[in-house]
Order: sequence, then C-alpha cells, then structure tokens
Amino acid sequence: GLLGTAVNVQAMVFGNMGDDCGTGVCFTRNPSTGKKEYYGEFLMNAQGEDVVAGIRTPEPMKQLNKKSPIIYKQLTGLMDKLEHHYRDMQDIEFTIQQDRLFILQTRSGKRTIFADVQIAVDMVKEKLITQKNALSRIDAKQLTQLFAPIFDSKDLDKSIPLTKGLNASPGAATGQIVFTADEAEAWRNDGKSVILVRIETSPEDIGGMDAAKGILTQRGGMTSHAAVVARGMGTPCVAGAGDCQIDYKKKIMTVENRKFKVGDWISIDGFTGNIYGEHIDTKPSEIIQVIDGKLGPSKSKLYQNYKKIMSWADEFRKLGVRTNADTPEDSARARAFGAEGIGLCRTEHMFFEGDRIWAVRQLILAADDYAELRDKIAALDSQASLSKEQKTELVKLVQAFKGPKAKFEGALKKLLPYQRKDFEGIFTAMAGLPVTIRLLDPPLHEFLPQDEKSQQEMARRMKVKTAEVKAKVEELHEFNPMLGHRGVRLAITYPEIYRMQARAIMEAAISVSKKKKKVLPEIMIPLVGTELELKYVKEHILDEIEKVFKEKKAKVKYMIGTMIEVPRAAVTADRIAEDAEFFSFGTNDLTQMGMGFSRDDAGKFLKDYVRHGLYEFDPFQSLDRRGTGKLVKIGIELGRLTRPKLKVGICGEHGGDPRSVEFCHQVDMDYVSCSPFRVPIARLAAAHAALADA
Amino acid sequence: GLLGTAVNVQAMVFGNMGDDCGTGVCFTRNPSTGKKEYYGEFLMNAQGEDVVAGIRTPEPMKQLNKKSPIIYKQLTGLMDKLEHHYRDMQDIEFTIQQDRLFILQTRSGKRTIFADVQIAVDMVKEKLITQKNALSRIDAKQLTQLFAPIFDSKDLDKSIPLTKGLNASPGAATGQIVFTADEAEAWRNDGKSVILVRIETSPEDIGGMDAAKGILTQRGGMTSHAAVVARGMGTPCVAGAGDCQIDYKKKIMTVENRKFKVGDWISIDGFTGNIYGEHIDTKPSEIIQVIDGKLGPSKSKLYQNYKKIMSWADEFRKLGVRTNADTPEDSARARAFGAEGIGLCRTEHMFFEGDRIWAVRQLILAADDYAELRDKIAALDSQASLSKEQKTELVKLVQAFKGPKAKFEGALKKLLPYQRKDFEGIFTAMAGLPVTIRLLDPPLHEFLPQDEKSQQEMARRMKVKTAEVKAKVEELHEFNPMLGHRGVRLAITYPEIYRMQARAIMEAAISVSKKKKKVLPEIMIPLVGTELELKYVKEHILDEIEKVFKEKKAKVKYMIGTMIEVPRAAVTADRIAEDAEFFSFGTNDLTQMGMGFSRDDAGKFLKDYVRHGLYEFDPFQSLDRRGTGKLVKIGIELGRLTRPKLKVGICGEHGGDPRSVEFCHQVDMDYVSCSPFRVPIARLAAAHAALADA
Repeated sequence: GLLGTAVNVQAMVFGNMGDDCGTGVCFTRNPSTGKKEYYGEFLMNAQGEDVVAGIRTPEPMKQLNKKSPIIYKQLTGLMDKLEHHYRDMQDIEFTIQQDRLFILQTRSGKRTIFADVQIAVDMVKEKLITQKNALSRIDAKQLTQLFAPIFDSKDLDKSIPLTKGLNASPGAATGQIVFTADEAEAWRNDGKSVILVRIETSPEDIGGMDAAKGILTQRGGMTSHAAVVARGMGTPCVAGAGDCQIDYKKKIMTVENRKFKVGDWISIDGFTGNIYGEHIDTKPSEIIQVIDGKLGPSKSKLYQNYKKIMSWADEFRKLGVRTNADTPEDSARARAFGAEGIGLCRTEHMFFEGDRIWAVRQLILAADDYAELRDKIAALDSQASLSKEQKTELVKLVQAFKGPKAKFEGALKKLLPYQRKDFEGIFTAMAGLPVTIRLLDPPLHEFLPQDEKSQQEMARRMKVKTAEVKAKVEELHEFNPMLGHRGVRLAITYPEIYRMQARAIMEAAISVSKKKKKVLPEIMIPLVGTELELKYVKEHILDEIEKVFKEKKAKVKYMIGTMIEVPRAAVTADRIAEDAEFFSFGTNDLTQMGMGFSRDDAGKFLKDYVRHGLYEFDPFQSLDRRGTGKLVKIGIELGRLTRPKLKVGICGEHGGDPRSVEFCHQVDMDYVSCSPFRVPIARLAAAHAALADA
Repeated sequence: GLLGTAVNVQAMVFGNMGDDCGTGVCFTRNPSTGKKEYYGEFLMNAQGEDVVAGIRTPEPMKQLNKKSPIIYKQLTGLMDKLEHHYRDMQDIEFTIQQDRLFILQTRSGKRTIFADVQIAVDMVKEKLITQKNALSRIDAKQLTQLFAPIFDSKDLDKSIPLTKGLNASPGAATGQIVFTADEAEAWRNDGKSVILVRIETSPEDIGGMDAAKGILTQRGGMTSHAAVVARGMGTPCVAGAGDCQIDYKKKIMTVENRKFKVGDWISIDGFTGNIYGEHIDTKPSEIIQVIDGKLGPSKSKLYQNYKKIMSWADEFRKLGVRTNADTPEDSARARAFGAEGIGLCRTEHMFFEGDRIWAVRQLILAADDYAELRDKIAALDSQASLSKEQKTELVKLVQAFKGPKAKFEGALKKLLPYQRKDFEGIFTAMAGLPVTIRLLDPPLHEFLPQDEKSQQEMARRMKVKTAEVKAKVEELHEFNPMLGHRGVRLAITYPEIYRMQARAIMEAAISVSKKKKKVLPEIMIPLVGTELELKYVKEHILDEIEKVFKEKKAKVKYMIGTMIEVPRAAVTADRIAEDAEFFSFGTNDLTQMGMGFSRDDAGKFLKDYVRHGLYEFDPFQSLDRRGTGKLVKIGIELGRLTRPKLKVGICGEHGGDPRSVEFCHQVDMDYVSCSPFRVPIARLAAAHAALADA
C-alpha cells in the first residue's frame, strides 16, 4: 500500500543575487563537432530560466575565464572529473552564487552524429572507453546523415519552411522545379539543378529521379517508390507532402495558396522533411567527396573517424553485409562503403534505359500471340500421330507463328547484348565478391506508357495503331498488380525471358573471368510460391547455361536460388530448399503479402495505426518481428531442415534498418543486403547485434 | 531388372459371322435416370467398332428378347449376377457368336448424378449396399447439378455452341442480352428474361446480377466476382469467355465475327460453359420447385431421393455446415438446404441496395474531414491545460467540425434502421441457429461511381460539384485495393461505422428475441492482422453494445470473433485468440495473400500453372493444402493453444468444395460455411470425410 509520498527538501541556489552570481550550461566537448574543448554559455546575475527564455544573450564559456578565472578553473576541473567518471561527454548545468560554484545537474550530452563519431574515436584514443563501448554508443540509424549533402547553415537560418513532408531520404537539395522525369533529364543536361516534383513516382521516372538533385512527392510513405529509390540513390527526398497540391496539367504546385511553376526554385531537407520556397546553398558530405576521389582521405577528419569506426564494427560483426545495386557505378560506390557483394541486382531497371525500352515494348506487343501459338504448336508436336486436319492446322499455325516469333525473339536478341554489358560492368566492379542477380520481376505493364501522348509515340515508333497500344495496356491492366502476373510467373508463361537473362549473365561471367577477375554469380528467382515453379524455371535456366558453356567452351561456378517473399514459400520452405541453393528474404513483399498491406496505399491509414499504438514501427521501415519475422523464422528453419548449409540473406529495405539487422543476426542469417548508402549502417548494426550476444 | 514382357493370348470372338451373331453394350440400370431396368443397345452381325462408329443404328435391348429370347434370358441373368456380385450398376460389353453369348467386359457404369442418387437409394432399399456404401459412391461435386435449371433437351439438340467459356455456375439460362446492371433490372421489371453480359462484374452490379437469368463475362476465372456471386445466387454463369468481345460504348458483343446487340437472344450452359446464339427453352430443377413450395415433395422422386441421402449424410458427418447468406430469402433457402446457421453474413451488400447507397456516399464525402477534425479536437481535449491560442484553436475546430459531423453521423443514422431491419429478417429466418455477421469489409471506393455519368448524378443528388466527387474517387484510388484500406482498417479510422453496425445487430437481436425467437449473433471482424486491432475495435463494439443493453433494458447473448484471412493473423493466432471467441478462416483472401495471387488477375496466368502441373487444382476452387492449408493449420493450433475450446470455421468459397471440406474435417474445424446451393454438397462431403476416418 501507499504509505505516503517522499519529499526531497533542498536548499536553492541563486544566480541572480548580484554581479558575483550567474548561471550557465556547459559541455565537456563540443556537442556539434565533437571537438575536445570546454563549450557552453553563461549569464551573470541570472537564473536558469533567463538563459532559456532568450531575453538576454548568454556569453560563451571562455568569457567566464576572463570574468572569474577561479570559478572557471573550478568548473573545468569538475567538467574533467565528471567526464572521466561517466566516461562520456557531459552536459552540465551550474550556478554561481556569490562567487561560489554549484553544479545543479550533469548528464550525458546530446550531440550530432558528427560529434558522436569524433568523441567516440577520441575517447578510445584517450583510453577512456573501449572500442566496444565506442561502437555501442553510436546510433547506427544516425550514420546515414554523415553521407548526405547539407544546407549551408547561414543560408538556411534566413529561411522558414513552407510546409513539411516525410523525411524520406536524408540530405539537403536545392533546385528548380520540374514536374516530369523527361524535363528533369533535359534540364540536367542543360546544366541545371532540378527538384523533381511528382504526385508520386513510378519505375518510368527512374531516369528523371537520377537526374534530379532532390525528389518531392505529394503522396506515398517512407517506403513508397520515390522514398525507396531515393534512398538507394542517396538522393534527398521529401515524400508524402500532402499540403503540396500538384496539378500536372497546369504544371503548378500550390502550397498554402502560394503557387510554384516550372523553373521556380525550391529547397527540400531530407533530414527534417522541411520544404522551402527558395534557393538555399548546399554542399556535399566530406565522406562522399573522399569516396568519390575528390578529396584526399587525409584532408578529412570526418572520413578518418568514419573509417576507424567501421573497421571496429567489421571486427565484431558476424553478419555479412551486401548491397542492392543495379549499375557498375552503384556497385563501385557500395564497395567503397564496405559492401561484401551484391545481394540484390534488379534487372528490370536495366530494361528502362535508353533504347532498351523499345525492345521491351516490341516484346510485349508480340508476347501474347507468341505464347499462344507456341503452345498450340507444341501441343500438336507432342502427339504421336496427326490427322490430316491436324497436319493442315499445324502448317497454318507455323505460318502464323513466324511474325510473332520474329518480333518476340528479335526483341530478346536486342536485349541480350545490353544485359550482357550491364553484367560485365557489375561483375568487374564486384570482382572477387558474390553478385546475386534477380531475374525479371515487375509485371509487363510497367513497361508500357500510361498517358495518351506516350502511347501515340509508342505506336508511331512501333509502327502500329495507337488503338493497339491502348488495347495492350488495357489487356495487361491488373486490379492488384502486386499480386499479379510478375516475377517467376512471367517465366512460367515466357521462359524465354529468363533464358535470355541467364545467357547474358553467363556470357558476361565468362568474359569477365577470362580477364582474370573472379566472378561469383548467384541467379535469383523472384516471387516463388511453390517448389514446382522453381523446378520448372530452373530446368530452362540450367539448359540455357549448359548451351552457353558449350558454345564458349568455358565454365563458371554459379548458384541458383530463390527469393522468399510469398508467405506460401516461407511455410513450404523445406520443399523449396530442395532446388534452391540460397534463400533471400524479400521482406518488402513478404510484409505486403504477410500483413496484407500495399506499400503504396498503406500510407493513408498506417498513420492511424502508429497513432493508436497498434504497430510500434512502420512495418515497411522496421521488420515486424512478431508477424513477418515469424514467417522469416519458419522459412529459415524449414529451409535448413532440408539443406543445413543453406545460405540465407535478406534483400528488402529492412536490410539497412538497425532493428531489422539485429533480427537477421538473431535468426542466424548469413548476410543482409541494403542500398549502398546504408551499407555502413548495416555494418554497425550488425556489430551491435553481435555485441548484444556476448 | 526387366526380364521380359508378359503376353496374354486369348481367343477372339466374332459378332459379324452372320445373322446368329451380334454385339452390344448394356447397363444393369438406366445410366441416365437410374431406373431399375435392362438398358442398352445391340447390333446383329456386327463387331464392337460398328456400334461405336455409328454407321448403323443399334437397336434397344428389349428387341433382343424378340430376336433371341434364350440369349436375352442368359444375358439378363448374367447382368443380375454381375450387379449382385459387384454391388453396383454394371456397364457390360457382350458379343454373340453363332448363338453363343460371350461377356467381353464388365465395369461399374458411368451415370448422371440423377441416376447416381436413384441407384444409391434403390440399392440400399434392396439391401444390396449399406447407407455408408451409398454415400461414398456419390460424388459431392456433382450434387450441385441436381439444383440447377436445365435446357429442354429437344431444343438443345438443334443448337450448336458459338463458343465456350468457363462453367462458372451450373445451370442453363436463356434470355435477351443486356450490358448493364441497370438495364437488367429494368428489363426484368418489364417481365423479360435477360442474360447480363459484362466484361467483368463488380459489387455495383449486384442488383442486375440478381435480376438476370444468367451471367456471361468476358474476363475472370472460376472465382471472379461474377462466378462467386452467381454460384451464391444459384444463377447460371459462364465466365472468362475470351472469344466474346464486348464493347460497352457500342453495346455490341462480337463472337467470331457474329455481332450481338442489346435484346438479342442468347443461351448459356453453366454445366458445360457453352454459349449459344439463340433462345433455348429451360426448366427449373424439381428439387428447387419443392423447396420453393411449387411442387409437393411426394410429387418428386428426385426430391425424395435427395432428402434420403442427405439424412444419411447428416447421420455420419461431424463437421457442422452453415451458409453464407446476406438476406432473409437466402437464409430461408439455405435453411431448407440444411444449413445449421449462417457462417458469413456480409453486411456490405446491404449498403448497395436502393437508397442506402446515397447515405453511404454522403458518409464517404464527409469521412475525411470528419476524422481529421475529430482527431484534432480529441488531441486538444486530452491535454491537461490549454494555452490561450489552443483554446481559440479548439473553438475554431469545434465550429468547423459541425458540418462534417452532421453529415457523417447523419449518414450513419440513416443506415442504422436499414441494417436493423436486415438483421431482424435474417435473425427471424435463422431463429434458433447461430448467425455470424461480418462487419463492413470492402474499401470505401467500391461504393463510389466510377463512370462520368454516374459521378455527375451523384454530384447532383449530393448537391456538390462533380469535381468534388471526382476528387474523392481519385483520393480513394488504391494501387492494390486487395491490400488497402478495408476491413478492420476502416474501423481503426472510423470506429463509428462498426459501432453503428454493432448497434443495429443488437437492437435487431433484442427485438426478435422479444418475439420468443432464439437469436445467436456472432459478430465477426474482418481482415485482422494483429491482436491490437481486434482489441481496439472490440472495445468500441462492447461499449456500444452496453449502451444498447442499457437503453433497451434487455440483453442478448453474443460472441465476438475474427476472420483469419491475413497470413500474419494465422502465424500470430495465439495472441489473436486472446480476444477472439471464434475464428473463421477467410480462405479466399488467405489464398490471395498467402500465395500472392490476386483472384481477379490470376485467371490470366493460372491456366499456365495448371497446364504445366504446377498446381494440381485452381487454388481458389480447392484449398491449397500444402500452403494455404499450412497457414490454416498453424492458425488453428496456435489459436487453440490459447483457447482450447475455440470455435473454428471456414467461410471462403472453399467451404463448398468437397476436397476442401475434407481438409476442414481433418484439421478439426467445427463447421464449414458455403453458399446456399452448396450446403448439400458440404453435408455430403463432410460425411465422406468422416467415413474416411473410420
């Protein structure tokens, strides 16, 4: 029972009893930069609230030395003592009453990630803390800020934000507004800095997103297409800024009655989500400058600190860290960030670039007829004997097949050298490290233009009627594309596509390995739900690879594995492991299907969930351990029942989230894979997880 | 090893050596009607292939008695003997060589379901077989044919099919073509028979689907909206007839160059999927005539046989059988079919009828503002003290809230009496039996009109600008509605909707129970993925129910449970069972999410899967035991770990599929629920499953 409330009675000290009195706040190191210096401010003849209220301007610490050297000496002596005692940078409140110093409070001081890193490195050097202590104090999530461009702080101080969106990808960006991906590319080519402003983005916008300094969307959550791609590119992004009303037709963005048109300057802050209606200068992170070779490592203290901490992390962690990268440039950058291979190379991005899209569209236009006639001919061919009518039918079918076959196979032939070259670049950049390549995943309709004008252009280029293009778009429309004809399902209908990709991978692997570079390709089949799908597609892939080996008179070691992203695959993983040499958990899709949330739609209601505490975290940002995590656990356990040495990784966005990385460590995965900019985060988070074990 | 191939050497008999020779096929009972009679045909001076080739017309059995009474006597004696030996109707081939009878082959004869039932009943009466034998011989899947209308066979013989679609819902239908649901209703009201012809159907079409004699769709699989609803209604349906090109604008359907316009006659055969370009007479099933009270039970042998077999099934089965029904009419019919309660009463169908849709639309237009202001006011209200600015803000918010609140709550008030009346009807029809009512499930956008004209009409009626209606449609658009803002998620945002429904249910339950009818309501929350969702919503529901009990000064016993249809719910069922008094597996959605297939889109590629043998059955027709079934199993096991007496059922389409019913029996469910027409199937399948146990 409650016996009473304890009351502390304590004498108060006063800093406002005259000029020999004062009050202040000090830090044992600079909380902004981490520099080892006495830092803080004070006011004479004042109380704490006067400092906070901001009516009088406090003076910097060193002035105290002038005003009262004795007090200053006492204070700095105590600061040293307290820091040494707590082995951490201290945030101390003090009051001087009639030339007598009182310490009111001390606590570990809040600091920027920049200061955090500096202090950790210094304190290890000073033998104040161990490397393990140092590592455990750095918040992996904050690390990403080290790499992002930042606003020029003087410029920023003059501005007030227009509105706020979600801080979807860190960094500051300033540029002129464009409303389409094409404009973004054209303006960039004219040497302009642009911010791509869209209601939402789609895979067609990739080129423009890459061309933009920053991306602003009206809709979409932290894992919307814009947010995910921007984080992968390291491009600042503010997403889901609902107050920004974007009118594509009028090419106007309206924010609280202010109208912005094409070419107007705006700035976005991916650290905070703030949006500014003007130009604000930015500068790149020093670490990026070093990695990109524009700054010598010795010139950047930040880089050196970062390097040191990463090396400690690598010493302790058990989990491998790979990257999600689709280009040689991304691969090289990720490698510089410490990636130990590619865990997810998406091949569909390669289908959008430049002229390739036209080959893809040619393929799509022919695909239906191709498959239908192919199957009819195969059905007749497989019969022991044919009637006269059937023979006539067969001749007719073979004749009709010629056109679609030429178009379909012609398109694949056009794509093959492009893909081969892509893979050669990636294998070269990743020489000696494994590269997991996911075969084509998105539904075909993603490659078709959705707006009237682009459809007309496609019709003109493809020499067909616009109506035919429209009919194809209509035909491929899906009610729930997330649950539609994509991933391995495409290859069940068109195994020729995966054959082409397998060929491109192996031809590239052979060609690169002939240059004395070690190539470790891992072919990954997406969206597998049943072992029979995998078996069926694998047979085609193996057959094609054997052909390549014979043609080239050379062999390369490789693996074939699967993504586990369909709940059914997780609960039948024992069967799937019979044919899969590795599993990679696609936890984005596994979350979508497992929880029944569409990533693109959930933004509208997930906020209510977080508000009511129904989910502790946005399940797309941090893996839902109890639900999605259970499916992952079941999948790993069943998979290793069949294949004890099964290699297991994760390649969803979660691979770069510290809480999720910890889970991956706990369920005994071999590696996590994440976007290049998150590789250092994952390395640190993996070390944290390993340290927590001990 | 292979030691050689065995060869049978047997003397051949000849039926073509003269007029004292012949050959024939006979059945020990009529394979078409089941009548106990010697049935078959023969040809004198002929071989078996002559009978098959159809060059000469065979003579009926009784002619043999005239031609050769001795042989006839021998043959019928052997027929009796063989049937008695095998205890089943025999299909026998015989040859007469120079007045000597040879039996070439005997086997159990194929028969129609009509004959099957008759033979089973007769043989039990003859003590040839037991009731168990009789039950096990009847294919539950075929049973549905007993209830479907059929073509007049003479009329049918004259017709050849235009093309073929999927036999989505059994029965024959003939009528005039209409292309919209509105037309269907209008024409029906004019006393016409119509076939509703749509590219695909949506919930808005319900009224028209109900008005039509049959439904034909160009797109969609065996579990498309059209197929599912049609089976539920017992309306013949041919779905996914790809050869039928439907042009809504021109109001023309083109099939192989033949054009059909509004008012043209067509006929569809839901038994076979055949489509005919003309009028063909139909007649209703005798069983339906009896159930509907249009025919005395004693007048229909078919009905009596059916009744007998069902009573045997009920004796052996352990699984309960309920029905999915949304109206008093359906409930009454299902009860006549033997349903022991309602396992799924969908409340959304009730939202579409007549004037209700306008209240729903009023609610939707106000919903966003309502929720936003409600939450802002609540946030301020929950603070201990407010600043002056906050007080001003609160006054402003409360003022702004008035309009949306009046509209939103007004709409709910309009809907309440409608829903109450619906439930009163259903509770009355189901007196003494449990009724599981699923609270609102579909996303709100399903209640908004999608076409320009209807949007204008809505704007006019709602007294808003068409632009506002369009903006709302745009705002509610979802990329993957299947994985969107629906089910319990709606109630997280708008708990008021579930409160209204809970009130309607309880007010109805009290009013009906006052009439001395026993009411057993079970309130079911759809799409639950985490226990916290259920807890949150349940609190609102319990609070509302308590209010009703106080107001009415009466109480009714009830249960609150949940659907398990999100994979996450299945793997966390132990936690969910803490708040759920029953589970009902929604295996349609569980299949969609668990396998990652959209029911509406999968038709396009699932055929490739079945062709390649990647799935043995269409997983929407027959539960995928290994995958979806595993999730069900995990869900039941975890659920009963927490609540050993947990009541468990299934309410997806699978509840009426014999193979799936068998699975439900094996995993120890308490009941299955299916559409009214499938109730007898489920009863028989449940008996089969129980018999297989022994």
